[in-house]
Amino acid sequence: MSRTIAMISDFGYRDAYVGIMKSVIKGLSPDAQLIDLCHEVPAHNVMSGAYLVASAVAYLPENSIVLGVVDPGVGTSRRAIAVQAGQLTYIGPDNGLFNMAYDLTPPLKAVELSNSDFHLPRVSKTFHGRDIFSPVAGHLARGVAFEELGYEIEIESLVRLPEIGPLIKESGIECRIVHVDHFGNVVTNLSRDVMEAAQRRPVFARIKEHRAQFAESFAHVAKNDPVAYFNSTDFLEIGIRNGSAAEQLDLKQRNMLHIETERI
Amino acid sequence: MSRTIAMISDFGYRDAYVGIMKSVIKGLSPDAQLIDLCHEVPAHNVMSGAYLVASAVAYLPENSIVLGVVDPGVGTSRRAIAVQAGQLTYIGPDNGLFNMAYDLTPPLKAVELSNSDFHLPRVSKTFHGRDIFSPVAGHLARGVAFEELGYEIEIESLVRLPEIGPLIKESGIECRIVHVDHFGNVVTNLSRDVMEAAQRRPVFARIKEHRAQFAESFAHVAKNDPVAYFNSTDFLEIGIRNGSAAEQLDLKQRNMLHIETERI
Amino acid sequence: MSRTIAMISDFGYRDAYVGIMKSVIKGLSPDAQLIDLCHEVPAHNVMSGAYLVASAVAYLPENSIVLGVVDPGVGTSRRAIAVQAGQLTYIGPDNGLFNMAYDLTPPLKAVELSNSDFHLPRVSKTFHGRDIFSPVAGHLARGVAFEELGYEIEIESLVRLPEIGPLIKESGIECRIVHVDHFGNVVTNLSRDVMEAAQRRPVFARIKEHRAQFAESFAHVAKNDPVAYFNSTDFLEIGIRNGSAAEQLDLKQRNMLHIETERI
Repeated sequence: MSRTIAMISDFGYRDAYVGIMKSVIKGLSPDAQLIDLCHEVPAHNVMSGAYLVASAVAYLPENSIVLGVVDPGVGTSRRAIAVQAGQLTYIGPDNGLFNMAYDLTPPLKAVELSNSDFHLPRVSKTFHGRDIFSPVAGHLARGVAFEELGYEIEIESLVRLPEIGPLIKESGIECRIVHVDHFGNVVTNLSRDVMEAAQRRPVFARIKEHRAQFAESFAHVAKNDPVAYFNSTDFLEIGIRNGSAAEQLDLKQRNMLHIETERI
Repeated sequence: MSRTIAMISDFGYRDAYVGIMKSVIKGLSPDAQLIDLCHEVPAHNVMSGAYLVASAVAYLPENSIVLGVVDPGVGTSRRAIAVQAGQLTYIGPDNGLFNMAYDLTPPLKAVELSNSDFHLPRVSKTFHGRDIFSPVAGHLARGVAFEELGYEIEIESLVRLPEIGPLIKESGIECRIVHVDHFGNVVTNLSRDVMEAAQRRPVFARIKEHRAQFAESFAHVAKNDPVAYFNSTDFLEIGIRNGSAAEQLDLKQRNMLHIETERI
Repeated sequence: MSRTIAMISDFGYRDAYVGIMKSVIKGLSPDAQLIDLCHEVPAHNVMSGAYLVASAVAYLPENSIVLGVVDPGVGTSRRAIAVQAGQLTYIGPDNGLFNMAYDLTPPLKAVELSNSDFHLPRVSKTFHGRDIFSPVAGHLARGVAFEELGYEIEIESLVRLPEIGPLIKESGIECRIVHVDHFGNVVTNLSRDVMEAAQRRPVFARIKEHRAQFAESFAHVAKNDPVAYFNSTDFLEIGIRNGSAAEQLDLKQRNMLHIETERI
């Protein structure tokens, strides 16, 4: 059956980069189903990309390939990898882009994309999305076995974004802003699953000098008051009704939050 | 045969929302053909969305499904609906988003999307595009009957945008700006069909203190003079050659126009 | 087999124009594979479009159709054409949009799209993308012969962008900026192939009062120094590491460069 390839990158829409990647894939695997998850990840922002991947994986068709190219290290010695995790396959640079997705479903096996039979004949220094990642995705979609893509590597050797996991403490949970959406809501790396596994219930969130009450949704709070809630992908988010939390509270990616919790 | 699903939303391209909706659809109906009509409808702007839908419907493949998610009322008691009109099926919130399309081809039957068998197992408060509208579209595309989607509702009960229709008077026609395009041309809710059915011929348009002559196209007028014409989707539009009518004449969505007409 | 149609335009994503074109194509040829090369070519900027087309053609699936609509002359007497070059077919206005691609693979035959059997029944003055180019692409994709699209025209009669070719002189090579990418790198019309065919090796580039050393990549130069290199599509480009060459050196499309070369 035709496989889905879900694409995410920071290439934007002003150039032809994404279209060229799709051309390479379709040339190898005309039946592949391409889905654009997002191509406007902020430039080189692996952490935002990691969140956006994690927000989507639960909804992908079975056996999908996730092709991710947010790749500030292209042309350096960073590895090109493919990773099997659950029924999904991830293809991209080894830089943490798939870390938050691994937290939802751990990796089973990984290879370095060392087999150049599945790359374009000529590999540029700056566009591995076209020359390595897309042709590998195309070959995989047309039936090449995962193991043929290159040498197996240790799961433990995969690059981790160290800041990406929340920290569970006696006094509460420390987490971090990983993404700012286009409404100005700030998304953290704390998922509902992690909180429930830790047998905690959130009470309020402290960030800088601000305090955000937990609520089921915006509707339950006054305008201009920050509110904390689990968003539609079940990550903790801070927003302001009809406003931009990022702007009004001066919040940025990587800022820390402290979540006061009760035991359940 | 595989059905086309034409999508329109205000989700933009900076997040993964649209990609997630497509993932849900393709998981249910791998053969569905997805077409993006527009995902940069101004946020919560149902009226602009209504115009953009109307501008496209005449060109959609037969039996297409129009999946529209401009949904400021998500999480409130607004209904989720499917509507059959001509050979097209509309799926989205009951908020007027499909009104201008209904003016071209009236609805035949409508259901509320009450059958949760065709929703995702867990429905969030804020993302019905993913949890209700996309899975319903996917099920419909794979062959589920329209009637199974939920309880039938009266056509007359569908929410109307009251401002959306033009008003035909003895002295002329009153209409309204419904959309500003990216060149700054302002599009009204007056279609050529409505004008011809009323047996009128336009002479000029008055808007605020300005007066725009009718012309076949920009080529026939002086620079900096506003001109009125039927645009490529046959709605009356005001533009300025090599300029932005919206900016230079300070025009906004919902502004009223008076069209002086002759009888034919 | 299903054919690929690769689309490029300056319609942007804020309106439904691109979605309407796709609807027309899919209505005629449901199996056509659509790829978006770029729809954010700067408005009416044929030269940027010409570069973006040229950057992609080497990667398109076999027998692809390139559907290009950057068409400032729509509604005037400019011709609508289809051109066969190598195994690709180009469809669009006769205004130079495909010139840089022809430099890579010369045209074999060309027709004017005079056969209105393959246009929409009603052709507007302003949207030939929908009314002529898309239906022609759809018919071609479903099997209509190239020759049926209209009267054959002379290859020599095709409109050329006169500025588009580089000039090889005894003292070096004169070339020109054709595109500014979203990082602010400026791309010229000088391809590696042309330079090698002329048996030259580049030494440095002069542009305005600036001098840019040739290097394999950014990594080899100091910050803030302009550097010249062949980009991932093998056109000569000027960039500044971690900066915007366009802004910092005040460079614009059509600016001339002089390349000092050695013979090889």
